[in-house]
Amino acid sequence: MAKDIEHIQFELTPQLLEQVNQLIDTKQDIALSTFLDSFHYADIAEILDEISLDGALYIIKLLDSDTTSDILKELDDDLREQILKNLSDTEIAKEIEELDTDDATDIIAELPQDRQEEVISKIEDEAHKAEIKELLAYPEDTAGGLMAKELVKVYDTWTVAGCLQRIKGQAEEVTRVHSVYVVNKQEKLVGRLSLKDLIVAKNEQKISDIYISNVDYVNVTDEADDVAKIMSKYDLEAIPVVNDNQTLLGRITIDDIVDVLKEEADKDYQLAAGITQDVEADDSIFQLTRARIPWLFLGLIGGIGAFLIMGGFEDAFTGEAFKLFFFTPLIAAMAGNVGVQSSAIIVQGLANDDVKGSINSRLIKEMLLAALNGLILSLFLFLFVFAYEGSLNLALAISVSLVAVIIVAGLIGTFVPLFLDKRGIDPAIATGPFITTSNDIFGILIYFMIAKLILGI
Amino acid sequence: MAKDIEHIQFELTPQLLEQVNQLIDTKQDIALSTFLDSFHYADIAEILDEISLDGALYIIKLLDSDTTSDILKELDDDLREQILKNLSDTEIAKEIEELDTDDATDIIAELPQDRQEEVISKIEDEAHKAEIKELLAYPEDTAGGLMAKELVKVYDTWTVAGCLQRIKGQAEEVTRVHSVYVVNKQEKLVGRLSLKDLIVAKNEQKISDIYISNVDYVNVTDEADDVAKIMSKYDLEAIPVVNDNQTLLGRITIDDIVDVLKEEADKDYQLAAGITQDVEADDSIFQLTRARIPWLFLGLIGGIGAFLIMGGFEDAFTGEAFKLFFFTPLIAAMAGNVGVQSSAIIVQGLANDDVKGSINSRLIKEMLLAALNGLILSLFLFLFVFAYEGSLNLALAISVSLVAVIIVAGLIGTFVPLFLDKRGIDPAIATGPFITTSNDIFGILIYFMIAKLILGI
Repeated sequence: MAKDIEHIQFELTPQLLEQVNQLIDTKQDIALSTFLDSFHYADIAEILDEISLDGALYIIKLLDSDTTSDILKELDDDLREQILKNLSDTEIAKEIEELDTDDATDIIAELPQDRQEEVISKIEDEAHKAEIKELLAYPEDTAGGLMAKELVKVYDTWTVAGCLQRIKGQAEEVTRVHSVYVVNKQEKLVGRLSLKDLIVAKNEQKISDIYISNVDYVNVTDEADDVAKIMSKYDLEAIPVVNDNQTLLGRITIDDIVDVLKEEADKDYQLAAGITQDVEADDSIFQLTRARIPWLFLGLIGGIGAFLIMGGFEDAFTGEAFKLFFFTPLIAAMAGNVGVQSSAIIVQGLANDDVKGSINSRLIKEMLLAALNGLILSLFLFLFVFAYEGSLNLALAISVSLVAVIIVAGLIGTFVPLFLDKRGIDPAIATGPFITTSNDIFGILIYFMIAKLILGI
Repeated sequence: MAKDIEHIQFELTPQLLEQVNQLIDTKQDIALSTFLDSFHYADIAEILDEISLDGALYIIKLLDSDTTSDILKELDDDLREQILKNLSDTEIAKEIEELDTDDATDIIAELPQDRQEEVISKIEDEAHKAEIKELLAYPEDTAGGLMAKELVKVYDTWTVAGCLQRIKGQAEEVTRVHSVYVVNKQEKLVGRLSLKDLIVAKNEQKISDIYISNVDYVNVTDEADDVAKIMSKYDLEAIPVVNDNQTLLGRITIDDIVDVLKEEADKDYQLAAGITQDVEADDSIFQLTRARIPWLFLGLIGGIGAFLIMGGFEDAFTGEAFKLFFFTPLIAAMAGNVGVQSSAIIVQGLANDDVKGSINSRLIKEMLLAALNGLILSLFLFLFVFAYEGSLNLALAISVSLVAVIIVAGLIGTFVPLFLDKRGIDPAIATGPFITTSNDIFGILIYFMIAKLILGI
């Protein structure tokens, strides 16, 4: 066997793509499959993402289904949809046969409703077919939607030697064995063993004597987010899934949780940036517009609101006080920034489960914090306005209202996500344009009202 | 042995904290340690985070070091720092002995420089001591800073039976065995085996006949981010670390990568929200101020810039055109929002390695996208201004300049992160207040200039 180690240092160069395209164009099937065989399936997926749909289809039809099934699950969603559209039900079923039940189910779930049953009926392995049907029934964002049926299971009455013998068969079907799950005669989960425990144990020992009964598990109806939290909090690499009767149904592995965490982080980040749905830089202009324009429209409404407020104060501020209008972008920016900062800290704290204590104590803390920040910034602004405009009254009016605006903005930024969270709504929607826009309006309104009081108009 | 399964459904209730505090106050040591033994160490860490420092210290000194060492690594950084300050060098060394080398090194690295050597000198296990010293030498954000020395290693000349025999000893020291690494006589990594492969293999087979030579690995100097990308792209649960001579030095496990990914996501999120350093909702007001005020100050400077620009146009826009000033918050908000949206998509795309193609094609796409969004929003604004103010000229001036402002804002939001990334600077700093502030100023400037042209002033 080859003794060379391949370091993973894949780079998608234009030369590489050129080479692949040329092999496709000249239909050099053997050379092409030999060439691609030297890459990891995740790398081949990257190549397919970058060539034409026809080229990608050509490669999918050329390579063995044990490779193409892995490639398929790594592809960009849009491309996978296109490719599946161009494959027959039987071809898809063949890919599905090669995949673990969780990945197989994910791919089938992406098909149009009417094709799903057609494809499933073409799967030859009856056990695999039944398992996929079972998994399809669970909502995507629950433990059931994440789990795979592949696992290594032993009965508590077995011996270590018998167990090692019997799990050889099961283990061959499971890509990675994290834990061996121990069940009783009624198929109820009673404990777990690591392969390490099995290897370290003596052959004649009974499973019931060596297994660890203190096993973590989740219910099949638990939410994916909660499963991710449990697995990362307790540093678990796999967790068994049971139903209400404690019957062992499947297992979830950490690589799926890595994906859940990434998606969650991406979603929160996009919400904070004012993007309403999952888009990528490579999506079409129309997809991107659909994701971006709702928040922009909200911003526009906010801006019109600011215009109307300013119009309302038009007659009040004349002469020197007229300069107040020139500070509205400053006020709006400060209110927006403070609001985003305080809401982001709360949203992140809620996500990591470390926001403790009552809403009131949280609000008092934010008020003190905002007051401190506001005082520092207002002092600076006071000095600038006084030096530049030479008017003590104007400088005082602007800087005092800035403190008030910052405090209110901080309170809104703190309160809204806490309130949404209490109501069971994802607090992440409270960040970004939502907070910025409402704080713009409140900020400008408060600013003019306080300035009017101070200037005695 | 107990056959009950404990479902992880820990909840930190005020009653629970009260109970713990009471057991501490009344010094009921046996009851307290029995009570705490029923919890996972990650849960005990949560309890300690919520009680007084004295209480936490009391518990740390009460429980066995095999539990307290695990608790220590899960504690909030600030609390851990406080607790370590109150433990003697020998006490810390005892905790360190219980931890895997990677966690041990992380904790020692947090100690003040002068205490580090004192503590290390108190570690009794010479091998552990030497390994920790080795790990301390690697920068924190590299593969060397993430790896642990604990791994299961076999030589390619061994047989399966001999191998199983010998790894029993090694495996006992390693919390989780993901892979067995195969080295040659020169200690160079030549391949890997899963425990599953070993169990499935026949006893008399040679390791050299069954090992998989195609093993992924990283260099000890590789950056932590890159290791995280490789492990999540290729769905690896552990990866061996080698030096330039291919000598096997250690291994990195997926749970450390989950932490790296989380920290990365948190950092990007905070940067987008205008928070300059890693803070939590529970940090002190001064820590929070230090993290928040730099970006607020930037926003203040931007606001002053906007004020100066408006002052410059004061004499130009009189009469009806005076209304233009009332739309500056709208213009600033739109410029800021568009900039944040486009920069966030680029930053996220760069992080996920799916921004391909040239900067130019990216800018052209963003220009078309911004033009489309801008036209839709401007049409709405035009209708509003025309209906409300009844002036075609004013409506035209405002809406045409809005399109221009949105296009420029989109281009800045796209260009800046791409430019920073090319220069090797983290593009995430380009999101949030940085883009908002610069877009506010550019936006208002462009707005007045174009409006002036259209109104023919």
